[in-house]
Amino acid sequence: MRVTEFPEKNLKDYIDISDPKVLEEIEEISKKLKGLRVVHVNATNFGGGVAELLYTIVPLMRSVGIDTKWEVMEAPSEFFNITKKLHNALQGAKLKISDDEWESYMKVNKENSKKLELDADIIVIHDPQPAAIPYLSNINSHLIWRCHIDLSSPNEIVWNEFSKFLKTYEKMLFHTEEYFPEDFKEISIEFPPSIDPLSEKNFEMSKKEILEVIKRFSIPNKPTLTVVARFDPWKDLFSAIDVYRMVKKYSDIQLLIVSAMANDDPEGWIFFEKVLRYAGLDDDIKFLTNLIGVGSREVNAIQRYSTLGLHTAIKEGFGLVVSEMMWKGNPVVARPAGGVKMQVDDGENGFLRWDKEELAEAVMDLLKDKEKRTVFGIKGKEKVRRNFLVTSHLLRYLKVFHELIS
Amino acid sequence: MRVTEFPEKNLKDYIDISDPKVLEEIEEISKKLKGLRVVHVNATNFGGGVAELLYTIVPLMRSVGIDTKWEVMEAPSEFFNITKKLHNALQGAKLKISDDEWESYMKVNKENSKKLELDADIIVIHDPQPAAIPYLSNINSHLIWRCHIDLSSPNEIVWNEFSKFLKTYEKMLFHTEEYFPEDFKEISIEFPPSIDPLSEKNFEMSKKEILEVIKRFSIPNKPTLTVVARFDPWKDLFSAIDVYRMVKKYSDIQLLIVSAMANDDPEGWIFFEKVLRYAGLDDDIKFLTNLIGVGSREVNAIQRYSTLGLHTAIKEGFGLVVSEMMWKGNPVVARPAGGVKMQVDDGENGFLRWDKEELAEAVMDLLKDKEKRTVFGIKGKEKVRRNFLVTSHLLRYLKVFHELIS
Repeated sequence: MRVTEFPEKNLKDYIDISDPKVLEEIEEISKKLKGLRVVHVNATNFGGGVAELLYTIVPLMRSVGIDTKWEVMEAPSEFFNITKKLHNALQGAKLKISDDEWESYMKVNKENSKKLELDADIIVIHDPQPAAIPYLSNINSHLIWRCHIDLSSPNEIVWNEFSKFLKTYEKMLFHTEEYFPEDFKEISIEFPPSIDPLSEKNFEMSKKEILEVIKRFSIPNKPTLTVVARFDPWKDLFSAIDVYRMVKKYSDIQLLIVSAMANDDPEGWIFFEKVLRYAGLDDDIKFLTNLIGVGSREVNAIQRYSTLGLHTAIKEGFGLVVSEMMWKGNPVVARPAGGVKMQVDDGENGFLRWDKEELAEAVMDLLKDKEKRTVFGIKGKEKVRRNFLVTSHLLRYLKVFHELIS
Repeated sequence: MRVTEFPEKNLKDYIDISDPKVLEEIEEISKKLKGLRVVHVNATNFGGGVAELLYTIVPLMRSVGIDTKWEVMEAPSEFFNITKKLHNALQGAKLKISDDEWESYMKVNKENSKKLELDADIIVIHDPQPAAIPYLSNINSHLIWRCHIDLSSPNEIVWNEFSKFLKTYEKMLFHTEEYFPEDFKEISIEFPPSIDPLSEKNFEMSKKEILEVIKRFSIPNKPTLTVVARFDPWKDLFSAIDVYRMVKKYSDIQLLIVSAMANDDPEGWIFFEKVLRYAGLDDDIKFLTNLIGVGSREVNAIQRYSTLGLHTAIKEGFGLVVSEMMWKGNPVVARPAGGVKMQVDDGENGFLRWDKEELAEAVMDLLKDKEKRTVFGIKGKEKVRRNFLVTSHLLRYLKVFHELIS
């Protein structure tokens, strides 16, 4: 199925925001790629990080002269039950995929290889759902597999079965090199995701607009430690509360836990309850969720109002929330999990610590030193500007395309 | 709009469940009403207690020979914003309804008086939304206003405006006599609502089925105090937790808080958070909500598994959850609010206490006396059988109809 409706995007809109060097490089390389035909294939055109990213990256590619299409798989709902299992197994879950399930997986991939319009110079296949399309059909295009999930410790049996389908790819793109699969190391490229500085979650806001949001949610005026994270066990929000409590002994701060809940996720609700009950009656711990009207724009305002970011996740695919917080000029104190290590430079734009006591010490260090916060904040924003804005992301794609067709 | 699809209902299905005397009376009186044409009018055919009730009562009326129709108003969404305000004001909220709003209210009522098929011997109008239809048209049928809301302390200005429209009614039906309006006392009838013993929330369940639910939600095997109530301030769940804590000092019990959340109710979420945080880390307080898969059937099983019901609401329209709990053979300890007083007979099938210490004492009294629990439980179930099953409700309607046409 072709996705045809896009927001207007133009590279020019990023002139005052992105790194000029990045924009120059894009100009230069895109001259060599004019008219190149690229098609992105993924599993959904709505919901989830991949679709969100494609809504930005596809129109941006077009705006630099690449003839870019976006095709979405068509499949019955059982297929997505199977690929959800596949997704979990590839991230390490101990579960089995039956022969029948593999067969259905292949059948849908085979059908989609015929249904979708894949006529292009380069095909970028996103994630495991459509990954077997090239293997099951005759395609003469250059083939890229763009993997958005954590492949650092996959379920081996499932991986052995699944990785057969990957043999036709020329390049594979992963958030961090930690996810490079042993068998495909030589064609793997470190390829972090990005944030869009023009989106509601990241665009500039006036002080007045920020304070309107802060007032609406009755957030008091005091030093503010902010965690943005879903209610899932890997985010370890209990540790965020513990760190806050250690700091609170010495300093009158507040902890804002900014989160979103999906209504169809019973495990999320169980976890939501646990965290709320762990927080107990302390008024200086505030929960700010979609349930009470916190959307992208509100997250943006809250991040801009914050003194410091905290991120206690013990496992993290990439952790773009860290870049989002740094983009607002705030240092981030975080655990060195997954892609967080690529964003936070310890002692430069934040601190990386595993231990809760040490996290608390790092928070206190920054709280009492306004100048350090300012310096860290500026460096953090620059780091994001150079590496984790969608323009850098676009450049990374163009470089891979250029390499493939040269 | 005519509601045409109904579940199958037959009075015969209630033979082994309802009070034989009630069924006999229904038989007798319905002979005199054969062919009577009745139409119910309300604001919605989906969602809410009134629609739920009509889905049972309309087919039951038909099954005893009454030619019963159900008509649902048609109106733009702004109308329902106005009637929501009207509803809140009639329950005591301090707010104003503007002249424009009254005009829209009348306009929609006037239009519906033409659109709806109101040709019948008796018209039963439910709640304030369609209440002005008879006033704004020429209707020769007998007119009943069935009010499901708490009219004990209405906003006077709004009531004065609204009550003008009520002058055409011959009878008014209220959950309890506390809600009789001074101006209409002589035509008001105490008319409690009812539960359907054949619905998922109340039908019989085998021990095996009950334990399957209990196991699914990991509910431990220990004496169980259960509150069923929405997260709204009037339910005072904080007091329920306080009462549990007082009892817990002497006795190893658990508190189950069974509740449902609507996604579009930000105030509900704020309250949900408060109650969870008030409960803190005590594992013996369990929250069982629709969010984790607790539906009607699960509520049924949990009530059947419980040792005692607790109901701490300080304001209560009627409180059918009390009858639901009593129907499962459990005594209920409750505050004597609104319709709860009609259901719980103090010292007979439960206890009525305002004070938290006294509520805790009543709970302890019943916890340590199994025989008393059994006796109270049997009496409670009988009380519901005679008064608060849908069959008694049907009989109440038939009696009013008979009185009107005699």
